[in-house]
Amino acid sequence: MRSKPTLVEVAALAGVSKMTASRALRGAADVSEKNVEKVLRASEEIGYVTNHLATSLSSRTTNLIGVIVPSLSNVVFAEVLAGISDSIQESGKQPVFGVSNYDSEVEKGIIRDMLSWRPAGIIVTGLEQTDQSKKLLEGAGIPVAQIMDVDGDLIDINVGLSHIDAGRDMARALINRGRSRFAYIGSALDKDIRARKRMKGFQEELSDAGLELITMRTDAGFSSLALGRQLTDEILASGCEIDCIYYSNDDLAAGGLFAAMAAGLEVPRQLLIAGFNGLEFLEGLPVRLATTRSPRRKIGSEVTRVLLEAMKRSLTPDERRLIFRPEIDLGDAAH
Amino acid sequence: MRSKPTLVEVAALAGVSKMTASRALRGAADVSEKNVEKVLRASEEIGYVTNHLATSLSSRTTNLIGVIVPSLSNVVFAEVLAGISDSIQESGKQPVFGVSNYDSEVEKGIIRDMLSWRPAGIIVTGLEQTDQSKKLLEGAGIPVAQIMDVDGDLIDINVGLSHIDAGRDMARALINRGRSRFAYIGSALDKDIRARKRMKGFQEELSDAGLELITMRTDAGFSSLALGRQLTDEILASGCEIDCIYYSNDDLAAGGLFAAMAAGLEVPRQLLIAGFNGLEFLEGLPVRLATTRSPRRKIGSEVTRVLLEAMKRSLTPDERRLIFRPEIDLGDAAH
Repeated sequence: MRSKPTLVEVAALAGVSKMTASRALRGAADVSEKNVEKVLRASEEIGYVTNHLATSLSSRTTNLIGVIVPSLSNVVFAEVLAGISDSIQESGKQPVFGVSNYDSEVEKGIIRDMLSWRPAGIIVTGLEQTDQSKKLLEGAGIPVAQIMDVDGDLIDINVGLSHIDAGRDMARALINRGRSRFAYIGSALDKDIRARKRMKGFQEELSDAGLELITMRTDAGFSSLALGRQLTDEILASGCEIDCIYYSNDDLAAGGLFAAMAAGLEVPRQLLIAGFNGLEFLEGLPVRLATTRSPRRKIGSEVTRVLLEAMKRSLTPDERRLIFRPEIDLGDAAH
Repeated sequence: MRSKPTLVEVAALAGVSKMTASRALRGAADVSEKNVEKVLRASEEIGYVTNHLATSLSSRTTNLIGVIVPSLSNVVFAEVLAGISDSIQESGKQPVFGVSNYDSEVEKGIIRDMLSWRPAGIIVTGLEQTDQSKKLLEGAGIPVAQIMDVDGDLIDINVGLSHIDAGRDMARALINRGRSRFAYIGSALDKDIRARKRMKGFQEELSDAGLELITMRTDAGFSSLALGRQLTDEILASGCEIDCIYYSNDDLAAGGLFAAMAAGLEVPRQLLIAGFNGLEFLEGLPVRLATTRSPRRKIGSEVTRVLLEAMKRSLTPDERRLIFRPEIDLGDAAH
């Protein structure tokens, strides 16, 4: 670590007064173009950076935007962060992140910590914060966005999709392809509220069609190909006659594909396999599985756009809630 | 948005003076335990949060730690962030993230933005920043960590692994398993400097053993199962006799497995497939592929630990550089 370059050094190198250097860096109008250029070149040269913190002191909030996601070992939320990064770049705002590990008490602690930094806005995942968290968010006096899910009451801004509808839509599409003997496989359903909602919608749609789940397997662990394979093996070994399995996500579904292949089943003819998310890796699998394409990156970029807008002006209810209707891709079962 | 609760409201609800409420929240010693409890309960009740920004004003830096990764649509860097989140929780620091999209000019812009916030420390990916970025980082007067790669000169703190050695170690392990007719498949090598280093180490080790790559395929696009499948199809169709393919990562390698299966090849007996990273999804595949287990999450948690330590005291050169030697897992080819 070298000692940090100072404004005095910038001014000396540029051959201007400290006051002129300071005004040039702040973009003041009454500094000549020539001097602005000299000061910028000098600050570049010696690696001087303006102190934005001091600038933000006069205002009530900082330029930080807090983002809380349940997990980062899941590519879904990493892609949400990527979308936020896409939209935030030009705004001068900086995203601060926290990981709740699907624990609403941990989430509450992170919300409290983040608010103590006077962020300009905050993004949380889902609609099911604790009452205490909601009170903190409502009282923060800044735009608050809840993302991913729209099945419930919003605090302020809400960008996502209806997971109940996503489950219903997939059930309808599978029934329309002639399937009638359904099984369900899910993981971490006590933590993954949105997966529970999809399962609920799926069952409701089956019920409306006079059908029901013939069998199901769930596990408390987080989803993985290996777990999907194991739970599918169990269902196939149980002897239940089924022609379709709906999984809580693509990771489990891909594991299910390998279990079906090992059992000598032809997918999707003998067993249709449907997941959720539309992860990129599905495109490389030997069989194209059915899935719902969740607009993860778009949720990240759109919520950031709305949040930034809400810092400038009051939004209408329509502007504050964006509901995506995700596309269903039946893969090789479409034909 | 409700209006933000004020300290005056906390004091009124707690039945103490504003000064007492303020001192209680700052943990001052001369406030009675009873009053501290009343003030904390009142602030909890109405959702009041302390302004940490104001607290940090007196000091030279904020409690922010900047983190710059090349991509977030890649689970590897998401897991690095997860590791950082693991270690940072109890420290009172907040991680700010930026995504460079593997572009060193974008990275420079993010570094400049982040430094303007006077972070307490900064974490960047790799050792190959631009000269201008290095000048900014060296002059920042804060601990700077470079992660993932150790093949080169460090600025201050460095936590990662030698990718040249990783390539060499894999080549040695494959030769020891009796393979001699090697192909290589890689993607985005112009951007992915660490993949290039692994390829270099791999070729050096082959050369030391009197061997060379029989054929190779590379593509400018980012890695995916689909791309791995396509490039492997090309090599298999070329008629080159090979018994092993080394891929720049696991995604490509898994795609290669599906290409080999479709071509009726028995993996690993007829074709050994080796990737890099040790991603979790490999465990669910029909065949356990060979890979190098990169300690991604551990790099994230360890670099944060070292960075936090460097904020308290001067570290020795040994403490400032942590080199991991990643484990090779030959999967089904181990037997």
